[in-house]
Amino acid sequence: MTTTEKLNQTIRDIPDFPKPGIIFKDITPVLADPKLVSELVDWFVDKAKEDKIDVIVGVESRGFLFGMLIADRMGIPFVPVRKEGKLPHKTVKYAYELEYGNATMEIHADALKPGQRVMIHDDLLATGGTAEAAAVLVEKLGAKACNFTFLIELSFLEGRKKLNSYNESVYSIVSF
Amino acid sequence: MTTTEKLNQTIRDIPDFPKPGIIFKDITPVLADPKLVSELVDWFVDKAKEDKIDVIVGVESRGFLFGMLIADRMGIPFVPVRKEGKLPHKTVKYAYELEYGNATMEIHADALKPGQRVMIHDDLLATGGTAEAAAVLVEKLGAKACNFTFLIELSFLEGRKKLNSYNESVYSIVSF
Repeated sequence: MTTTEKLNQTIRDIPDFPKPGIIFKDITPVLADPKLVSELVDWFVDKAKEDKIDVIVGVESRGFLFGMLIADRMGIPFVPVRKEGKLPHKTVKYAYELEYGNATMEIHADALKPGQRVMIHDDLLATGGTAEAAAVLVEKLGAKACNFTFLIELSFLEGRKKLNSYNESVYSIVSF
Repeated sequence: MTTTEKLNQTIRDIPDFPKPGIIFKDITPVLADPKLVSELVDWFVDKAKEDKIDVIVGVESRGFLFGMLIADRMGIPFVPVRKEGKLPHKTVKYAYELEYGNATMEIHADALKPGQRVMIHDDLLATGGTAEAAAVLVEKLGAKACNFTFLIELSFLEGRKKLNSYNESVYSIVSF
């Protein structure tokens, strides 16, 4: 079985979460399978090597799960992007629109050096707003958003289109 | 230098965050130091081996950072404990008091098997309320909360006392 097939088989569909009509893709059974976790990290590490990544940026909070593993396996720094008000030091902020209302993401202003090659990682690519916000923050610090990695892509939400200037560097292991 | 000394030197003090008079212990410089990250994981893995741990339970959201690394290094499952409303499947809940108001933590009802030996991991031991809540959830599922690990302990808040039935199995790398 391929990594994609294994992941696909292990993700659990939860109907009507967080609201009626939505099928939530639950990755907790993946976290409980250490062999699969390790294989997924290998998959991401390949993308990091291909694109000569220097730093992993992980998006709060499920992006922390594999983000740290990828950084550890590569022996490179991990930098968190968090919701407003969580990072304690001086930050750079970016506000973006969600389906209902707005959200603001932050990164520490000293977290990246100009020219660093960054992978932006999260568990899920949905509408792409959060991933795009992370890329804006990375580039505000003078670093380069080189690629995006996700466990899961909800392709019907067309998040990849929002990342169109990076389109060829958007990698997801499974796509629905 | 010992692991404790290195961690101590790398943590950044942020005065008046999240409110005036509080000195926040910022671990983001630790995440940016892959050699130190790896050494900290080794430290935690030693505690996991000593106590014959089968599963790592990590507390949202900074407990996800090292929790996944410990589980991966051990080749064992990782289980998240999250704030109410985040876990999509059937959960067990526990409400506890904070300094101001209440909080409720959840774990998936099928996340642990009876008898499993669990490490509860978070970045910080403060008053101990959240760690105790995680232990209650673990034991509600019939598993055993065998030890607690933290990067940082704020010993003046006496969180260790709240975990008194587990007191000898509470491990922190640095203590303030």
